[in-house]
Amino acid sequence: MNVSETSPATLSEFDAIDHALVDGVLARQLRPLAKTITLIESQREDHKLRARAVIEALLPHTGGAMRVGISGVPGVGKSTFIEGLGLYLIEQGLRVAVLAVDPSSSLTGGSILGDKTRMEHLSHHPQAFIRPSPSACSLGGVAEKTRETMLVCEAAGFDVIIVETVGVGQSETAVANMTDIFCLLQLPNAGDDLQAIKKGIMEIADLVVVNKADIDPAAAMRAKSQIKTALHMLRPMSQNWTVPVLTLSALNQDGVAEFWEQVTNYRTVLTRTGEFEAKRRHQALAWMWDMIDAGLRSRFRNHPQVKQTLPQLAAAVEQGTTTPSVAAMRLLGYLN
Amino acid sequence: MNVSETSPATLSEFDAIDHALVDGVLARQLRPLAKTITLIESQREDHKLRARAVIEALLPHTGGAMRVGISGVPGVGKSTFIEGLGLYLIEQGLRVAVLAVDPSSSLTGGSILGDKTRMEHLSHHPQAFIRPSPSACSLGGVAEKTRETMLVCEAAGFDVIIVETVGVGQSETAVANMTDIFCLLQLPNAGDDLQAIKKGIMEIADLVVVNKADIDPAAAMRAKSQIKTALHMLRPMSQNWTVPVLTLSALNQDGVAEFWEQVTNYRTVLTRTGEFEAKRRHQALAWMWDMIDAGLRSRFRNHPQVKQTLPQLAAAVEQGTTTPSVAAMRLLGYLN
Repeated sequence: MNVSETSPATLSEFDAIDHALVDGVLARQLRPLAKTITLIESQREDHKLRARAVIEALLPHTGGAMRVGISGVPGVGKSTFIEGLGLYLIEQGLRVAVLAVDPSSSLTGGSILGDKTRMEHLSHHPQAFIRPSPSACSLGGVAEKTRETMLVCEAAGFDVIIVETVGVGQSETAVANMTDIFCLLQLPNAGDDLQAIKKGIMEIADLVVVNKADIDPAAAMRAKSQIKTALHMLRPMSQNWTVPVLTLSALNQDGVAEFWEQVTNYRTVLTRTGEFEAKRRHQALAWMWDMIDAGLRSRFRNHPQVKQTLPQLAAAVEQGTTTPSVAAMRLLGYLN
Repeated sequence: MNVSETSPATLSEFDAIDHALVDGVLARQLRPLAKTITLIESQREDHKLRARAVIEALLPHTGGAMRVGISGVPGVGKSTFIEGLGLYLIEQGLRVAVLAVDPSSSLTGGSILGDKTRMEHLSHHPQAFIRPSPSACSLGGVAEKTRETMLVCEAAGFDVIIVETVGVGQSETAVANMTDIFCLLQLPNAGDDLQAIKKGIMEIADLVVVNKADIDPAAAMRAKSQIKTALHMLRPMSQNWTVPVLTLSALNQDGVAEFWEQVTNYRTVLTRTGEFEAKRRHQALAWMWDMIDAGLRSRFRNHPQVKQTLPQLAAAVEQGTTTPSVAAMRLLGYLN
């Protein structure tokens, strides 16, 4: 399926400028890359159409990167770790893009990765590309823009895409659903693992790292052992991947090579079983359904009669003066 | 909001027969109760309309029962426990209804509660009412029918509604979302708790019971201690309710009174904080949105152009030849 088959409506928009963007991205030029991402992040309808056409044209050139999700609470040392990892990967001859999903960025104006000075060495490196979280009104919007940016970075030849997110809220699931491997950074403090378990983040981790092991190595080992026990309880036993727990000091660059070895090991093992590609296919399909559901819900909420009667029907359901099914049937009836 | 305001379309259907059903249910007669439930479970459109009108008329008389969800894997002793609990409650002067949510019942013809002889004494008691799981094509359908049946039983003056479900699949969440307190029965075997944790059932339990404690009391105490540790990790610490773990022998009727004491204690504590009513309001609203989402999805899937193009677009998304957003936008575009 090519552009002319899937989106005839956008073809007229797909002019010389956008052809130049596509060519520039494929030629691995940073300026067209940044411009394309700006198009993706724009709220203007004509920009959205153009962004969609550019992405469609780039699609045959995507999928080549290792997509690494990284999460952890503020203070766990994500920036130091990502900078260290990025520089290590560049040393290995790889090109690295760092993106972020921060649902609070629309409120705060971008807290994570907004300040590039947090990754001073990496941000100035010609083989690295760092982009802060897009602002959008919803997590779904932020995540979708980041996912599309990831595809564009792949077309621009980046070998590793790191997607960072803060360890609060639901953004972890969104990042886990767009990456190949989801890595959780933990503090060696007692209790940090409990917080991750409670929030359901531990459950979706493919790799856990106890950072800041230099400060108190014994505490880091205790945390590692506790996390292993928790993982044993939380994850199904009969699968091809046992979630590794590593101790690491991002500050001293100690353990970064071992971390990457586990990531490539994960890719090798799951590629052999076919799970790696199956996961990507499943992610793409789930993403489509999420967007369809969000679209259906938004159309429903914007229907004039729904808008008018929803508040009083919802109140009646809450008070028990009408049933959920009667209210739902009545509201759905307006769509006919 | 009364019947004439909310559902004018159903008023013509609301004839003398259905008035007799409403009066019969309110008079606590079992035959009209059973007939109303049969209407609710019917797949015929005219029956559905009549059922909705009857439920609307009964609504002002609902909400008075304690709604108790009970789950556990096959073999944990649910029937023996529910029979023992039911007979105990009847001794205390209460009337008890036992319903079931079994999503497999449409395939197997009703496995749980289908055979009333499993609860021989309770099923013959005039103060008890036992109804097997409705058959329906989806879990959502089964759960919705059970939820409406629960409301009818409340209008018929039952003081306690027990909703049983099997410890497999997603039915636990559905039952937890329609009851006031969700109780998990566990075996004293090592590993049963791990299974419940992995399936996310332990996380939603308000009360955990280690049954068959008579067989090996020491093993039951070990299981209790393990479950307490797991709950400590899984549940938020700062709330008004610490999930109790009880050991019990349903066979010997040992611990049933203590179980009920915890249930009433739960109600007292959460009523004082306002959480009990808040939970019911939240459940009703969430139910409405589930039904709306299901309705929107079903209308979407049944749209002729969606039906025709969905398979090839889904395949293109899976293969990465189109993006989830392009596919979603195109499919949603058909609804205009």
